Amino acid sequence: MEHVDLLVIGSGPGGYVAALRGAQLGASVIMVEKNELGGTCLNRGCIPTKTLHQSAEKYTDAKKGEEFGFEVSNISLNYDRVQERKDKVIEQLKNSVEKLLKKNNVKTIYGKCSLKPDKRAVISLNDGSTKEIAAKRVIIATGSKPSIPDIPGIEHPNVIGTDEILDSKELVNDLVVIGGGVTGVELAGIMANFGVNVTLIKRTPYLSPLDDDIAQRLFSMLKKSGVNVLTKSQVSKIEDQENSEGVTVQIKRKEKLEEITADKVLVSRGRIPNFEGLDELDLKTNKDGIIVNEKMETSFDGIYAIGDVASNSSMLAHVANHQGIIAAENAMGKEYKYDDRAVPGCVFTTIEAASVGENESSLKEQEIPYLVGRFPFGANGKALAAGKVEGQVKIISHKESGEVLGVHILGPNASDLIQEGTLAVKNKLKINDLVDLIHPHPTLSETLWEAALDITGLPLHQMPKKPRK
Amino acid sequence: MEHVDLLVIGSGPGGYVAALRGAQLGASVIMVEKNELGGTCLNRGCIPTKTLHQSAEKYTDAKKGEEFGFEVSNISLNYDRVQERKDKVIEQLKNSVEKLLKKNNVKTIYGKCSLKPDKRAVISLNDGSTKEIAAKRVIIATGSKPSIPDIPGIEHPNVIGTDEILDSKELVNDLVVIGGGVTGVELAGIMANFGVNVTLIKRTPYLSPLDDDIAQRLFSMLKKSGVNVLTKSQVSKIEDQENSEGVTVQIKRKEKLEEITADKVLVSRGRIPNFEGLDELDLKTNKDGIIVNEKMETSFDGIYAIGDVASNSSMLAHVANHQGIIAAENAMGKEYKYDDRAVPGCVFTTIEAASVGENESSLKEQEIPYLVGRFPFGANGKALAAGKVEGQVKIISHKESGEVLGVHILGPNASDLIQEGTLAVKNKLKINDLVDLIHPHPTLSETLWEAALDITGLPLHQMPKKPRK
Repeated sequence: MEHVDLLVIGSGPGGYVAALRGAQLGASVIMVEKNELGGTCLNRGCIPTKTLHQSAEKYTDAKKGEEFGFEVSNISLNYDRVQERKDKVIEQLKNSVEKLLKKNNVKTIYGKCSLKPDKRAVISLNDGSTKEIAAKRVIIATGSKPSIPDIPGIEHPNVIGTDEILDSKELVNDLVVIGGGVTGVELAGIMANFGVNVTLIKRTPYLSPLDDDIAQRLFSMLKKSGVNVLTKSQVSKIEDQENSEGVTVQIKRKEKLEEITADKVLVSRGRIPNFEGLDELDLKTNKDGIIVNEKMETSFDGIYAIGDVASNSSMLAHVANHQGIIAAENAMGKEYKYDDRAVPGCVFTTIEAASVGENESSLKEQEIPYLVGRFPFGANGKALAAGKVEGQVKIISHKESGEVLGVHILGPNASDLIQEGTLAVKNKLKINDLVDLIHPHPTLSETLWEAALDITGLPLHQMPKKPRK
Repeated sequence: MEHVDLLVIGSGPGGYVAALRGAQLGASVIMVEKNELGGTCLNRGCIPTKTLHQSAEKYTDAKKGEEFGFEVSNISLNYDRVQERKDKVIEQLKNSVEKLLKKNNVKTIYGKCSLKPDKRAVISLNDGSTKEIAAKRVIIATGSKPSIPDIPGIEHPNVIGTDEILDSKELVNDLVVIGGGVTGVELAGIMANFGVNVTLIKRTPYLSPLDDDIAQRLFSMLKKSGVNVLTKSQVSKIEDQENSEGVTVQIKRKEKLEEITADKVLVSRGRIPNFEGLDELDLKTNKDGIIVNEKMETSFDGIYAIGDVASNSSMLAHVANHQGIIAAENAMGKEYKYDDRAVPGCVFTTIEAASVGENESSLKEQEIPYLVGRFPFGANGKALAAGKVEGQVKIISHKESGEVLGVHILGPNASDLIQEGTLAVKNKLKINDLVDLIHPHPTLSETLWEAALDITGLPLHQMPKKPRK
């Protein structure tokens, strides 16, 4: 039996960060991983999608050369090389994490971990042997797994998950995507940019965490880039396509049944917490995961849960990062609380979207009075220079106090621009703090200034709107 | 004689903004412009350079297709179309400003304005007639003009200014750029990307407003993109090149004389305030411009100066924007002060640079104790996915209080990322405010988080550096 100060189960963006921080604070640390170092984020999520997204974007950009004053002929996609590049980026990041863990004296063990209530863990190693570890503190970072919807025909061999499409060496001609969460929307956009005919089937017209009207504009943009977006639609069954190797997807839309044919169906209907190896503990859970407090403590003393498996993670890699640090600090006797007030969310399609804080629906629900300021990228000099004129910035502030409550961006570099908003929301800054802030010219960030000015009723590069909400 | 509440002289980014805000606050406004609406920024500065920069960048990107998994053959630059696009972007922005002015009832008059001490102005209109205006308040926004260095041969016909190169329909083969301020550096980078052989001659190794080591890295990147950068070098004369239509530029470098031949020489050695039409007033000035206080008031009651012609503008368009609003508000009886503590500055070359607040030199000079945190883009997942791994983020905080004093970025989208830093510096936030801030994954903004973590001595994706300053 090996004794350690800290045992971390899972090596995703929550787990390996917790292990590193624990080690930095002087703990002896063992991290157990049943599959691949880096978890979903690095191997089957954030990083591979963003790498494919960049190839898709550069490929699309190159075809628009004429707009920018150069002519290009004979552009041909080499999807093998796109995949190779993706694998290389993953490999490089994985190697860096591996080195960091080694330098920080974190011991990584590959195997399946079963946790006992007394903080002992029995690990079935890949070579068939077992290993027992007794830990003073345990951080559970077992992540999540895809949710499989209960649809007749879902087990059809042409129905694939996000893991398969990310690793597929070949593009299909026709693809149906079931589920329009962030991942489904991103993959639909990427595949469309690579020339695949994509139909996206989504039950709701919303896209959490985006503000509703930003989400609707995003769907319009997605349609413009070639994706057939069917919202308020439900898949009722999937079956063999007659005289073909493809499938037929039957959907119910506007009270009517329709049929769509495709080579493959991608299911991307969210993820559920992964409780594997935890059944000997009577952990308190809900549908979102293991119930934890602000210190990431579970109902068991000395056992913490973070990231996708924790009830308060929003299933976001950057939340897992923070919760990893917070759990490790608390496990090492410090006091650090998770604050979920300013959690940004991003969507990467042909156009980016990013969002932080409250949106109009959430404020209406809470009956909080608010003002909205907007500014379109089409009126921003840098966006015009870059030929990226679609989208807008929307800022929401408290009607009386002026506090910045939410920032929602659809447009170029939204995922970078959002941080001005995240910092403002987190620190309860006022709309006048953004009005007074100098934004460099000519940059995309000026759109945030203009949206803030719009709230004051004295906008700059647009006329005031009356009546304003 | 026409009477108005507010007369604005100059229609650049300071002037037209001041005119709009004055009108929004209920003033009758006349704006006088001797040349083109929008001033240097829109016609001969920010906007044309950024539009050319975008074409240059897309052209360079397209040539790198193979890296991203697609093959491109036969890329040919059509510089005529690059110029057409630039003119179209300027035209579009100018039309918008024109419409806004009209809708806000700002009257624009084209002519040369001579201001009298009693706030009367005599305007020589372009049709030869004159017009007299009596104003209650005057805002001087006459901008700046290129500074012409005293170099033998500077009047040679092959020596051109930034106006000429921006409008030139043809690219030269060999270009010498004298002066490595922001504009010189940007134009050198753009021309190199278009395939021009560029030599940049710069007296100092620094590039205001960047931190010295960020500036040095920028120069290294500029060299990598093909610009022959000669710092600590001075031009001693320019003369005809023997048996050629070009010129020979003699420079003094490391105590030795060298000769460089070129088709054209671009002079970009800064700008000086433009006092045209103001000689009947005994305005207090210094080398930076008309001396003003925080309210943008000159030594004459009711006369304000803003932007490049004001002593405190840093000659930046975004400062002119803000000062325009401030002067207009004060002219209309409000109280609004200019705060120069958080003025961001950006440089757009193959790589972007952006900077806000104090740098190491300024802190050493003031004997303020500080800590430095850094993070390289090469270790950021999104930068790797985008293939933009050069550069780094550098954050400087007060050693004792932890206040964020400066943020310096060299790397992709630096001009968007800087605003998290500007907001932090402006609001005197602490380094822990950036550590606690959730940065979305995978985005470039995570580099700021990692640099902040580096300052705490508990970095994430890099090992701690010891000893730290």
